[in-house]
Amino acid sequence: MNREGLTRMTRVEVVVAGSDSHPVREVFRSTGATGFTSLSGVSGLGHSGYHQGRLIFNEQDALELLITVVPDEQLDALLAGLKPILDSSPGVMFVSETFVSRPEYFS
Amino acid sequence: MNREGLTRMTRVEVVVAGSDSHPVREVFRSTGATGFTSLSGVSGLGHSGYHQGRLIFNEQDALELLITVVPDEQLDALLAGLKPILDSSPGVMFVSETFVSRPEYFS
Amino acid sequence: MNREGLTRMTRVEVVVAGSDSHPVREVFRSTGATGFTSLSGVSGLGHSGYHQGRLIFNEQDALELLITVVPDEQLDALLAGLKPILDSSPGVMFVSETFVSRPEYFS
Repeated sequence: MNREGLTRMTRVEVVVAGSDSHPVREVFRSTGATGFTSLSGVSGLGHSGYHQGRLIFNEQDALELLITVVPDEQLDALLAGLKPILDSSPGVMFVSETFVSRPEYFS
Repeated sequence: MNREGLTRMTRVEVVVAGSDSHPVREVFRSTGATGFTSLSGVSGLGHSGYHQGRLIFNEQDALELLITVVPDEQLDALLAGLKPILDSSPGVMFVSETFVSRPEYFS
Repeated sequence: MNREGLTRMTRVEVVVAGSDSHPVREVFRSTGATGFTSLSGVSGLGHSGYHQGRLIFNEQDALELLITVVPDEQLDALLAGLKPILDSSPGVMFVSETFVSRPEYFS
């Protein structure tokens, strides 16, 4: 595993209420993600809460941060699958570049 | 939400003792961040601990990882606001590029 | 701490079973990382689980997400140190670019 051995992938992170975690995982799976990492102990406020007097999240909500990593060519399907969930439920999504050592695990 | 619909933003992550979480959130809010995500169950050692025999964090400390996302033009104000906290308290900060699907949530 | 004051570093995140956390921390330390952040409350499925009928992680496993940040020139040693752990145990690793305000903390 040297630096040349790293492969560029796309990391998608979604913060949703715990009750929306299952549909997010289903989208990950059905659009070809080979796995995910889930973090509990997550809370949040906003986004848009401060500015518009409307909270997307209430600080008491038990939220979940779900992380998956996909090859770039799977990103569009993943984003399309997440859109209905994020359109109808509170949630935020972050997409970023990452590098992995075992690309075969993710595709 | 296709790939072209993603907007580049700046992600700022701060790891601080739980007792410093409130001032960090206040800086987020006062410099225009529209929300944040907070993770508990965080511990840490260093940075600088290994090399200088001085621990920034003690592994027993209950730490918090706070994440916010701002448009690039708000970054300077946010960093300026965080500086006094990070200068006077143990803490680390990571700044990275991220892409979001709903830029209006963050500004 | 203005934007020009930020320094580019490399962020390495490793998700492993809690029982593999100690060896990962030892690699961080022995290859020159000056600290780490650890997150508990982590679970996960895959990667490769969905596709190959073999779970890398079982959803019941208590996992740990370990984050460290190193100067680019230390990355090869860090990756070489992590390779035997990741080759013999379930785990995923993400490498990404990050910017920090206090580079002297990390080297």
